Amino acid sequence: MNAPNDRPPLPQDLADTLATRFGSRFSVAAAVRLHHGKDESSHPPMPPDAVVFAESTAEVAEIVAVCHRFRIPVIAFGTGTSLEGHLLAVQGGVCIDLSALNQVVAVRQEDLDATVQCGVTRKALNAALNGTGLFFPIDPGADASLGGMAATRASGTNAVRYGTMRENVLGMTVVLPDGRILKTGGRARKSAAGYDLTRLMVGSEGTLGIITELTVKLYPVPEAISSAVCTFPTLAAAVRTVIQTIQLGVPVARIELLDKLAITAINRHSKTTLREAPTLFFEFHGSPTGVKEQAETVQEIASDQGGQDFEWATRPEDRSRLWQARHDAYYAGLGLKPGCRALTTDVCVPISMLADCIAETFADLDENAASLAGPLVGHVGDGNFHIMLLIDADNADDLARAKGFASRLAQRAIRMDGTCTGEHGIGIGKQPYMALEHGDVAIDLMRAIKRAIDPDNIMNPGKILPPQ
Amino acid sequence: MNAPNDRPPLPQDLADTLATRFGSRFSVAAAVRLHHGKDESSHPPMPPDAVVFAESTAEVAEIVAVCHRFRIPVIAFGTGTSLEGHLLAVQGGVCIDLSALNQVVAVRQEDLDATVQCGVTRKALNAALNGTGLFFPIDPGADASLGGMAATRASGTNAVRYGTMRENVLGMTVVLPDGRILKTGGRARKSAAGYDLTRLMVGSEGTLGIITELTVKLYPVPEAISSAVCTFPTLAAAVRTVIQTIQLGVPVARIELLDKLAITAINRHSKTTLREAPTLFFEFHGSPTGVKEQAETVQEIASDQGGQDFEWATRPEDRSRLWQARHDAYYAGLGLKPGCRALTTDVCVPISMLADCIAETFADLDENAASLAGPLVGHVGDGNFHIMLLIDADNADDLARAKGFASRLAQRAIRMDGTCTGEHGIGIGKQPYMALEHGDVAIDLMRAIKRAIDPDNIMNPGKILPPQ
Repeated sequence: MNAPNDRPPLPQDLADTLATRFGSRFSVAAAVRLHHGKDESSHPPMPPDAVVFAESTAEVAEIVAVCHRFRIPVIAFGTGTSLEGHLLAVQGGVCIDLSALNQVVAVRQEDLDATVQCGVTRKALNAALNGTGLFFPIDPGADASLGGMAATRASGTNAVRYGTMRENVLGMTVVLPDGRILKTGGRARKSAAGYDLTRLMVGSEGTLGIITELTVKLYPVPEAISSAVCTFPTLAAAVRTVIQTIQLGVPVARIELLDKLAITAINRHSKTTLREAPTLFFEFHGSPTGVKEQAETVQEIASDQGGQDFEWATRPEDRSRLWQARHDAYYAGLGLKPGCRALTTDVCVPISMLADCIAETFADLDENAASLAGPLVGHVGDGNFHIMLLIDADNADDLARAKGFASRLAQRAIRMDGTCTGEHGIGIGKQPYMALEHGDVAIDLMRAIKRAIDPDNIMNPGKILPPQ
Repeated sequence: MNAPNDRPPLPQDLADTLATRFGSRFSVAAAVRLHHGKDESSHPPMPPDAVVFAESTAEVAEIVAVCHRFRIPVIAFGTGTSLEGHLLAVQGGVCIDLSALNQVVAVRQEDLDATVQCGVTRKALNAALNGTGLFFPIDPGADASLGGMAATRASGTNAVRYGTMRENVLGMTVVLPDGRILKTGGRARKSAAGYDLTRLMVGSEGTLGIITELTVKLYPVPEAISSAVCTFPTLAAAVRTVIQTIQLGVPVARIELLDKLAITAINRHSKTTLREAPTLFFEFHGSPTGVKEQAETVQEIASDQGGQDFEWATRPEDRSRLWQARHDAYYAGLGLKPGCRALTTDVCVPISMLADCIAETFADLDENAASLAGPLVGHVGDGNFHIMLLIDADNADDLARAKGFASRLAQRAIRMDGTCTGEHGIGIGKQPYMALEHGDVAIDLMRAIKRAIDPDNIMNPGKILPPQ
């Protein structure tokens, strides 16, 4: 396999240095490179020139220092579940596979925190917490690594109550572009001590350093959990229900919107018999009476908006079945057009703009890309929704239509005071909207920060910041 | 009044430029300068060379651009309630008084957010929210400006439930060191779009730019609020009550610890008749049944720890009376030794370390600074507590003892995985602990960021980062 873009191959000295040091944990095999050069997005794969399987922060630091000496790009790889091409080796270089950094270093029950290596996945952390009475709530769908989730500022269904990775990382160990090891934050719940390096690294997508360890907040497993689904005559009625729920301060743990097509897809994929109409999925956490009260309040609001077919689930197996259906929405969506690829949008707007944003978006879809129409799912308590566009990978017209639609949607969200990406990150796909969303002064400032920390531009180059 | 430290006076050209442009809103009068060169800390005043009263973001940008041309320091002034010398003109320069930027620009009820100019104080914002059913929860005690609160990453009694300024600023307008106007963030509840410039500016203490406008989260006024006080046989028993409350996931809105001396001071100052013993103040927010349930759970936990004398307040006037007493603790403390000044510590540790940290701190106080002993108050749900040291300003030995004690306390907290400042900021007082808390690599990175954004070091120079 040639290096992409006809770049020169990896310097032999560098390859020799890493091969000597890491033996069989250094690989230039085509299959290994390809596996580390693709994610779950619709972006075509771009393999790195080599892969090193690191087993500790010290090893990551060593690899980065070597790459720094040769001014060669370094890309971190967790589980490969990015949706924006974060790990594609657009300028080649060395990929560091971090999956062996999979130790839960400490769980501190009294402090409600845990320190983990970056390769620990969210499900692995929750498995390790079994029996402690605590859990880690952030759930982006995929069983992503916590390092990757921090690097992309991930969130998901629980964010409306528990926040995103931004709010849930207390401190980190980060390998800087020159191989030095940075510690950020600490374990205090709050601090006013200097620049917030933790938050600077959260969402930096591997462009400022490689997160190798992180301390995250944990939460008590709620005494009671209750789930519900409810259908609505229109998407707007469902959105009004969400707005009123949030405004009343009902502390919903999850509030997810699915459109008719998403429900159709789920029914087919998961053999469920949900009514095919705009639907809200809810989850309530709290004491038994608290959960009951939340559920009653929401049911009342929903009924006023024409909500019907309330279905409740309090037993764990029923809740799991319900939410599994929601979680399978992505694969269910793909099943609507077998063999297709999905281009998934990710806008997030102020909740008052949500109904308008969705309505304009569907009008655009009907007019310009009806044949690509895929399901809508949304973390609507936060104003975040996704539309899957189902495209035939070999059809250039499909791709052009999908990109045009996604571009107009991103611009629409930004015009509505929102963002082109609520939780997937910028990667390579969203760079065209950075200046529109943030303005030129902010982009200049981001570039200044990038230059100050990574003057040789070796850390995941070509991501986040648009080319100058 | 001479410029401090025998620095050269302000360049005449600069003074003329600002005087011509701003007329009587430009002042070099000694009284004006002195007023803008002191805060509420025990640090001696250091007046700026001149003060300009700005009335808009554009004017701030204009003033900063002029100072940038002359490479003259610029310091922002909000309400002057800093506790760490943030606004002292340690290198002279121009102070920009922002109190006239006092407009609430927009309140968006559906989105639960508000945009305000930086000079709006937290009480002014809450007054403007009257009748909307929403409130802004962050309450550092002083009626500080929201710009100043963001700049110092302030928090206070409600942070255990509602977070700090870090979690509650959605976006900002910031004047950069060269006079350009930066917009950060937006109004989406979450975003994964690039480096988190908002969080970089929150807590930057005016060293990277001047915050002139900010959009903050609002919250629904709880349907029911209930307050309580309860005394304990020991501080440790009170702390154990806090730990268990947090671990059970009781969503307390406030949970404040006061020691016996603090209660004595309050009884004297506020004519209350509280029992003079370690005391917890609680506040619960929620539905009527939710609040009742929270209160019952906490009362049970407290009783197990020997808590007694539970006093409840649900009527607004009773709650206000109770919390006014807590809020007056600072002035009550000063009243213990009339004419004294207070040096207030601000450590924050993981909650599991809180009892040990307090015990070691009191042992140190008894041994080394008993004559300075002042009250302890703490936002203990977050692991944050303050000890007031009551010092005679004219007594060098008092000051030396107080500083030695505060230094050992900061180091103790850092050793326990905590921070030297939970909410007051670094300013000039906490710089000696920055490297110990963050490590040399982090300090280097902070310096690199500062240099990249403010290469001439004109923004509030001499703050946060220790001298090299």
